[in-house]
Amino acid sequence: MDIPTTRYDPRITRLRTFFDAVPRFCDGSDTPRAYLERCLEAIEARESSLQAFAALTVDGARRTADAATSRYAANRPLSPIDGLPIAVKDIFETRDAPTRWGARSLAFAPWRDAAIVRALRVGGAALVGKTRLPELGMGSPAATVNPWAPGRSPGGSSSCSAASVGAAMLPCAIGTQGRGSLTRPASYCGVYGFKPSHGTIHRGGDGGGQETNTHIGTLAGSLADAWLVARFLSGEAGPHPGSFGLEGPALLPAAIKPRRLVRLEGPGWAKSDGGVKAAYEDLVAAIARTGIPVVGAASLPETAALESALDEAGKALADIADYESRWPLVMYLQEDTGRENFTSRAFESGLRRADISRDAYHRALRVRAEYQKKLLACCDDGIVFASPAATDTAPAPTSTGSSIYQLASSLAGNLVVSLPLMAVEGLPLSLQLQGFSGADALLMAHARWLDEAFSDGLI
Amino acid sequence: MDIPTTRYDPRITRLRTFFDAVPRFCDGSDTPRAYLERCLEAIEARESSLQAFAALTVDGARRTADAATSRYAANRPLSPIDGLPIAVKDIFETRDAPTRWGARSLAFAPWRDAAIVRALRVGGAALVGKTRLPELGMGSPAATVNPWAPGRSPGGSSSCSAASVGAAMLPCAIGTQGRGSLTRPASYCGVYGFKPSHGTIHRGGDGGGQETNTHIGTLAGSLADAWLVARFLSGEAGPHPGSFGLEGPALLPAAIKPRRLVRLEGPGWAKSDGGVKAAYEDLVAAIARTGIPVVGAASLPETAALESALDEAGKALADIADYESRWPLVMYLQEDTGRENFTSRAFESGLRRADISRDAYHRALRVRAEYQKKLLACCDDGIVFASPAATDTAPAPTSTGSSIYQLASSLAGNLVVSLPLMAVEGLPLSLQLQGFSGADALLMAHARWLDEAFSDGLI
Repeated sequence: MDIPTTRYDPRITRLRTFFDAVPRFCDGSDTPRAYLERCLEAIEARESSLQAFAALTVDGARRTADAATSRYAANRPLSPIDGLPIAVKDIFETRDAPTRWGARSLAFAPWRDAAIVRALRVGGAALVGKTRLPELGMGSPAATVNPWAPGRSPGGSSSCSAASVGAAMLPCAIGTQGRGSLTRPASYCGVYGFKPSHGTIHRGGDGGGQETNTHIGTLAGSLADAWLVARFLSGEAGPHPGSFGLEGPALLPAAIKPRRLVRLEGPGWAKSDGGVKAAYEDLVAAIARTGIPVVGAASLPETAALESALDEAGKALADIADYESRWPLVMYLQEDTGRENFTSRAFESGLRRADISRDAYHRALRVRAEYQKKLLACCDDGIVFASPAATDTAPAPTSTGSSIYQLASSLAGNLVVSLPLMAVEGLPLSLQLQGFSGADALLMAHARWLDEAFSDGLI
Repeated sequence: MDIPTTRYDPRITRLRTFFDAVPRFCDGSDTPRAYLERCLEAIEARESSLQAFAALTVDGARRTADAATSRYAANRPLSPIDGLPIAVKDIFETRDAPTRWGARSLAFAPWRDAAIVRALRVGGAALVGKTRLPELGMGSPAATVNPWAPGRSPGGSSSCSAASVGAAMLPCAIGTQGRGSLTRPASYCGVYGFKPSHGTIHRGGDGGGQETNTHIGTLAGSLADAWLVARFLSGEAGPHPGSFGLEGPALLPAAIKPRRLVRLEGPGWAKSDGGVKAAYEDLVAAIARTGIPVVGAASLPETAALESALDEAGKALADIADYESRWPLVMYLQEDTGRENFTSRAFESGLRRADISRDAYHRALRVRAEYQKKLLACCDDGIVFASPAATDTAPAPTSTGSSIYQLASSLAGNLVVSLPLMAVEGLPLSLQLQGFSGADALLMAHARWLDEAFSDGLI
């Protein structure tokens, strides 16, 4: 496998993928253990510079991969993810490694597996490790560097889940997104990102608050893997209590050509880099040439109303996120040892969050509910909302970048698929597709059509 | 204090109370430390036979009570619960004691405080210990005996929170209710029970699943304490993400005479003991003599519809509870060591729960939503629904009793106040009052009127 480490080119770059390796596990020409060893070689080669992992659980992963190897040899794999080497963001509780939340002072002893970690084990996946994140998800960024540019950030807060896949260490990693924590690093690191509809994957054991905003999702080397893993997690761990699960086939849905693409760039556009705008305009124009009608938000009155509501709604989303991280995140900062155990950046950010009043929170919940009502008014299965996934390519190491392009979907609890189909000066940039909550399989089918059209040179 | 330990008489029995002790803390005639020591004496005297505690944290409680004593002396109490000795059900994570979930094989290391535990500490409460529960809340009952009858059960699953208050060890303890886990033991143990509207108190760190059913509530020696503590927890810990908090004054709302009492006994009536029915009929007749109109559910068409919907809805509630306890409770049972570490009762009960399909769960969510719509159709602030709190007095030690009278309010996410105003053959029995979700302060005002009327001999 040829892994370019200096320039990203979506026409050339191929990341590590799992789904297409399974036939070789079945016919014996490859094994999960051998696949894992290739991942471990890549980790060995790049981890010292990349710094993506908070913990590695190599021994356990090897044991699991050996067991999976035996199962494929006996033609009895446990699930479509049997033998998959994977990492999870270090906010999920695991029995075999501490949970650190990106904080130097925390190392919670293992006591149970988060619901998704349990599901991964039941399915036979080999948990290779836990990926770093900024301190408590809100303080100083992790030391991790961007796999395409050592002087830049992988984004946040699912930074290192994205980086580990972007560096071809693993075919897939698990991240979470409250405001922009998955789609944005996916774009910076050049990997596929899938944030399913809110609640479709059980959040038990992620322990980071922001409960009504947070989605669990996948970062992967292919769209097939991004879907496969998320779909399996929703089936095995179940949806979050009170929510509905991810509906659709176990494997990536067949491609469906989108009937229409609606540009919904919103307030992010004015803040976007010129190179980003140019690359996006080129891609959108190429999509239009395939015969897919591309319309501006302004041409649909309901969508225009959505755009204009985003400013107030953005404040609401921030207030909800802040209030909902009071427990447990802000709690750690408020302990007697808070000031000495955390950087001043985390400390100040955390205490600002603690200042949100309950009234402000309730107002924010109402604003969000109003936004969702407006959105439902233009709900139509034929709509795929499009925008760049980020205002820029990977930012400087002190920043995790802007999540402004994730605002609308985060408010709505909508699903997002991001495709790494663009490059700006050798750095990756993704096309972000947003669909209506619950229509995950359909948006994935549209995304597949676009991804294949790109591979086939039609776009 | 005279604590009858053999016969319960609601006209004589006085439990330990906190709110009325505060003026003496303020004038210096009593102190939180001295109050705590009286609690510890009661624990010392009765714990060996009662077996209510999974862990005691006496040293920490003494330190906290001393600090509270200093604060009252300086006329600067932290909150209305400053110096309150309290215990929490051993499902809540605490940093100073393991969490066992009633299981002999579990002893999760402390790593953080549950949201309500954190709030108790912030308010200055002295956490005395953690109370037992049946194994994982669903297996063999705890060894705890009923404070009024050593040969009987305190109920479940907030068994020992109720027992510790019923035995006058503490003025208040925290419990939870999914189907009937708080109101029912409150009745068996002769204590006040308050299950606020769903979501009004943050559930972070209770880790027991059943998320969309579970309410956190209080068991107390007085209505004033039951409200005071719940109201403080909702204010300090906040509501659960996405929910609204407990509105109303910090102290028990002023009494308001109910405009009407609607009997909603439902399917529990046919299963109730004759002595229970007789005591309840006597009490209802006495309430009617105060001039409060008492009407049967059949006289209100909407309410009759509610009663008839309860059978199907009961099945739905059970399916929801079962599905939502798959993670993390059933997970422990499914580990390799599950069979040896748990009793066969927990093991079988847990694996039955794991059998609920996602489709069955989704059907159950829809049935519950339909029931809630029917309920909203008869929503009227003037309505107070009444019933006995249990079909019988305390059951045999192998049972935790029937939760059938909690079915309607559990489905609705409604609040429940239960008042220990009856006795059957020397054992306590409560009147259960149900109000509409969100109207917590109003129902509490009605409950106060009834409680005071009882104390004054008007009822």
